[in-house]
Amino acid sequence: MSTPAPSVPEPSRELLQRAAAVRRSAMALGQLGDGDRQQALGAMADALEAARASILAANQEDLAAAAADGLAPALIARLKLDGPKLDGAIAGVRQVAELADPLGRRQLHTELDRGLVLERVTVPLGVVGVIFEARPDAVMQIAALAIRSGNGAILKGGREAARSCAAILEALQSGLAASRVEAEALALLTSREESLALLKLDGLVDLIIPRGSNALVRFIQDNTRIPVLGHADGICHLYVDAAADPSEALRVALDAKTQYPAACNAIETLLVHEAIAATFLPPAIEAFTAASVELRGDPAACGHGVAAAASEADWSTEYSDLILAVKVVADLEEAIAHIGRYGSRHTDAICTTDPVAAERFLAAVDSAGVYLNCSTRFADGFRYGFGAEVGISTQTLPPRGPVGLEGLVTYRYRLRGEGHIAADYARGERHFSHRPLPL
Amino acid sequence: MSTPAPSVPEPSRELLQRAAAVRRSAMALGQLGDGDRQQALGAMADALEAARASILAANQEDLAAAAADGLAPALIARLKLDGPKLDGAIAGVRQVAELADPLGRRQLHTELDRGLVLERVTVPLGVVGVIFEARPDAVMQIAALAIRSGNGAILKGGREAARSCAAILEALQSGLAASRVEAEALALLTSREESLALLKLDGLVDLIIPRGSNALVRFIQDNTRIPVLGHADGICHLYVDAAADPSEALRVALDAKTQYPAACNAIETLLVHEAIAATFLPPAIEAFTAASVELRGDPAACGHGVAAAASEADWSTEYSDLILAVKVVADLEEAIAHIGRYGSRHTDAICTTDPVAAERFLAAVDSAGVYLNCSTRFADGFRYGFGAEVGISTQTLPPRGPVGLEGLVTYRYRLRGEGHIAADYARGERHFSHRPLPL
Repeated sequence: MSTPAPSVPEPSRELLQRAAAVRRSAMALGQLGDGDRQQALGAMADALEAARASILAANQEDLAAAAADGLAPALIARLKLDGPKLDGAIAGVRQVAELADPLGRRQLHTELDRGLVLERVTVPLGVVGVIFEARPDAVMQIAALAIRSGNGAILKGGREAARSCAAILEALQSGLAASRVEAEALALLTSREESLALLKLDGLVDLIIPRGSNALVRFIQDNTRIPVLGHADGICHLYVDAAADPSEALRVALDAKTQYPAACNAIETLLVHEAIAATFLPPAIEAFTAASVELRGDPAACGHGVAAAASEADWSTEYSDLILAVKVVADLEEAIAHIGRYGSRHTDAICTTDPVAAERFLAAVDSAGVYLNCSTRFADGFRYGFGAEVGISTQTLPPRGPVGLEGLVTYRYRLRGEGHIAADYARGERHFSHRPLPL
Repeated sequence: MSTPAPSVPEPSRELLQRAAAVRRSAMALGQLGDGDRQQALGAMADALEAARASILAANQEDLAAAAADGLAPALIARLKLDGPKLDGAIAGVRQVAELADPLGRRQLHTELDRGLVLERVTVPLGVVGVIFEARPDAVMQIAALAIRSGNGAILKGGREAARSCAAILEALQSGLAASRVEAEALALLTSREESLALLKLDGLVDLIIPRGSNALVRFIQDNTRIPVLGHADGICHLYVDAAADPSEALRVALDAKTQYPAACNAIETLLVHEAIAATFLPPAIEAFTAASVELRGDPAACGHGVAAAASEADWSTEYSDLILAVKVVADLEEAIAHIGRYGSRHTDAICTTDPVAAERFLAAVDSAGVYLNCSTRFADGFRYGFGAEVGISTQTLPPRGPVGLEGLVTYRYRLRGEGHIAADYARGERHFSHRPLPL
């Protein structure tokens, strides 16, 4: 998917039929109770354990083909599914079974008038389409999250992981066969044409979840009317305020950049208040250099010892690597303005001991995550306590930020009456009470 | 907008600057407290009252021009803003001021570890873009909802209402000048080019709300990457079950079709269980005919006396008029399947005295509103008790159904630490507690 085709093909008749079968199975799945869905996840995990050897063998074949094709080592690392990794993924399926049921929660309960009662309850979305690159373990995670939340899933993995994904899906479906969930609630797409046509299945697919490169996400956003849960860019900032504790700020900055530089929640730009720059920057430059981080500074930062000069493009680049842009700002407001201009509204942090500056930053920075005195690397569904994550969204509307099971549900209004008609209220013969009832 | 241009122009430099000014003002507005925003709405209402004569005069000019241009009577009726209608709209602005503040609500509060506390709070979306046809009173309603929820708004009314909209916006801005909200938080677009280019203001506009014809909504959905709150179709159904109370079902059916046939929540198709068709249909045909409703039936319905035959296209047509398609179904499942195939997931109802059939319908019909023994005409923000409505959404993801102020807010995660870094947890030196804290 790294060089997307210019146009998205119409779905084939065969794809439409398969997607309709997923939808039918998903509608039945959505009617099942909590216990049935938990049991299905247990059966999926059991079946994965039973198919352990064939899954590992399929992955070996994928790895051999990838090596023969000269795939990049980073891609091969993501493709690799060894015993411990598979066991971890299976344990993950069992953990998702233990998460609280996201369905059937009553969010609103109002008596509109005597005998006319409105409620809003959570229900599954329907069918999610998931497009991911390389990592075959994503199939297990996403399938577990989808079934737990009552949704069908159409999955498309990278071509290089085709054998692994097929073996995993076969196991998952054989597990479902030992449950009340139909095996057709999960489907695997195998060709590139199918994965592109998936983007045109509005009415059959309710949400697209891309898990891959920025280019993949952007291509999908531009080529579908189906809502997309994800984010193209993760340009996160750490602002070191005049009133920061310098050693704490440096510890946070190093973690935010180096703990896992390829993650979307790693920082790309460090903003430093000019009043603390002379104190903070020299030891920071030393520590970052020791951690193999290449620094690129604005003129003021270079004046404090940053060796390379940043260009305009640096402020809007997601390096996903051991590179960090550094800028000295005149004050908090300049930091907020810089983040507003160049940030991707993912996660941005301030280090300060000044409560006024802290609250101003937390109120004014318009990102999904706004942090005080801690690393941006905490932006993650597991770390937030959601148990599992379908992705991180940088769109403005909810679901925003790290998205757990609740991103895979929506709600429905149910109104129960006793023959109530609108004309009685329009004529003023009856009146709404709008009395809140207990949830 | 009824014959949309094939391509959407790039925003002009002037439009970009105006939109950026709205965004800057909106960011400041988003920091204001509840009282400041309530006071601003009061000032807007006062200014509208002070400008009453000039607004009514501007509307008279629009009406004269519309008459000279030979506009359709229905359009002229929507365009007309007389004294009572204006007073009602001003009262509406004051009512929106009294609604509960949708901002700053804490939805989640978790201690991730000692000293590391996560919260999720509601915040404004930022800037909403509203495109509406004719009705100038919509300017007042939308502006009030936007300011109340801390959002800026870029408004584009129909060309035929240009003078009315300009007079209203001038009053609203003079009202804001007597408040802590900047007048630039509201902007009015006047040309067709600008309204099209609005669709390309991603990054400056967070949500598009179209209020107009199905063709307008569909065009907008197809031509913007900005999320769209609205619905193209409203194909609602009433299913009269075998166990329905025939006279109650007929009363509900008449209300759902005739109380306001142009509304999106009026029914377009009546589904009748074959076991009750011989009892229900003959008096229903008589009553609908007396109410000037044209009926179009499938062969079985025609066998019970419906005069005209329905074509395949009738099942997916939103008449918005006194026309109703009628189909006899073998059972509840056929009714559910018909709604799944032809419905627009807006609002669908069942009339039955059988609790099993009722619960099956309420669980299986995948629409924003699913009703039992009452008219689909209740699908409305005011009737649901939301106080005001920005629109009705038929998308699957929230906000879904009638959308009140909460559709104009999102949330943000705030994390406060004391120098916490992710590496400590990755190394197993610290552990997450994920302890829920009181909201």
